[in-house]
Amino acid sequence: MVKKRELLYEGKAKKLFATDEEGHLWVQYLDQATALNGARKDEVLGKAELNNQITSSIFEKLAVKGIESHFIRQLSNDEQLVEQVDIIPLEVVVRNYATGSFSKRLAVEEGKLLDFPVLEFYYKEDALDDPIINDDHVKILGIANDEEIAVLKAAARKINEVLITLFDEIGIRLIDFKIEFGRSADGSILLADEISPDTCRLWDKETNEHLDKDVYRKDLGDIVPVYQEVFSRLKNK
Amino acid sequence: MVKKRELLYEGKAKKLFATDEEGHLWVQYLDQATALNGARKDEVLGKAELNNQITSSIFEKLAVKGIESHFIRQLSNDEQLVEQVDIIPLEVVVRNYATGSFSKRLAVEEGKLLDFPVLEFYYKEDALDDPIINDDHVKILGIANDEEIAVLKAAARKINEVLITLFDEIGIRLIDFKIEFGRSADGSILLADEISPDTCRLWDKETNEHLDKDVYRKDLGDIVPVYQEVFSRLKNK
Repeated sequence: MVKKRELLYEGKAKKLFATDEEGHLWVQYLDQATALNGARKDEVLGKAELNNQITSSIFEKLAVKGIESHFIRQLSNDEQLVEQVDIIPLEVVVRNYATGSFSKRLAVEEGKLLDFPVLEFYYKEDALDDPIINDDHVKILGIANDEEIAVLKAAARKINEVLITLFDEIGIRLIDFKIEFGRSADGSILLADEISPDTCRLWDKETNEHLDKDVYRKDLGDIVPVYQEVFSRLKNK
Repeated sequence: MVKKRELLYEGKAKKLFATDEEGHLWVQYLDQATALNGARKDEVLGKAELNNQITSSIFEKLAVKGIESHFIRQLSNDEQLVEQVDIIPLEVVVRNYATGSFSKRLAVEEGKLLDFPVLEFYYKEDALDDPIINDDHVKILGIANDEEIAVLKAAARKINEVLITLFDEIGIRLIDFKIEFGRSADGSILLADEISPDTCRLWDKETNEHLDKDVYRKDLGDIVPVYQEVFSRLKNK
């Protein structure tokens, strides 16, 4: 059995620990919700288990479709084992419907189906408030080269296709989502971080009800039953 | 002789009139300086003549290098005749050195030479404060298609090369600039608007003195002698 070692990193929603296995990290999900770049923070009992289980389930389903990620296996309800990667400091966002900052910034009607999935890069840098950047910025900042940008975009678009189908089958419309990638020891680019209602906008296909973190962002109620609903639908698929 | 007809459009720095010639417009430059998206506005006597003459001179020099623009000919010190185009609502920015919003947004040292010219698109829409956008946004907003985006980028990069040399020969470092393009009646994409110290950042090669609108933006003094200096150097070339 893999053993947990020292704490390497504490983020907003997860702690990362070293392990006794070379190149493997122990992820501990946290019962914590944040918004506004961490300015708002709350303890939310049950969130850690739900996001760990949802992410594990989604990363397993993606692997079946040929999309590799850093995920190795679930360790407990709120822990998973992952491959160590150097996180690429980009938030890769894919949007199928207009909403949130996209609608506001570009004056596109909230909830509008987009003609094609729109891909965006944000420079993951809290001090700069994660500014939106283009491909030239990605290169000039030394974040990724042309070839890697092409890999990231193709992966993001393929992940979107798989997730649209996956969520559609459980009565959910995938509005948009944010993913992160990392470079593994052998230099390959792997999907990393998490895919959960924290990082996706998920609307019930029938009611348009938010089944995601917007419930927290917009103060619409308790997120635990909402995340539980997503997990139950995924599990019973 | 071409005759001026009705006013078609009044912008921040120019008025556009119809003419008695099909597809030709009469541009009247204005003695007006604005900043902060028009929130700050001042009358600046002499600016109209300088920007008209500088733009005319630059557009002529670009034509010699094979870069077509809407410019037909100068009509007077502060007027020019141009081909009518449908302006594409993009501010195309090319940056050779980091400065201004680029340095602030991405935490890149002010005045740093960039490893390659960085190209940016801003959605020209005052009500939205001209947000920075990527290629997917350009397409989803119906501003331009893939082929046109490639044309815009190639033209912007070529214009940058010509302008770097042109300014270098008169002791000026081209820091960055903003250009606009339009579609002519036959559907071809033409450089339009103006190229002047209003739309370029120009630093004296020896002293790093600002020879551009930053003198106005930063309240560093009178811009007329500064713009006059740029025009004199261009004229004597």
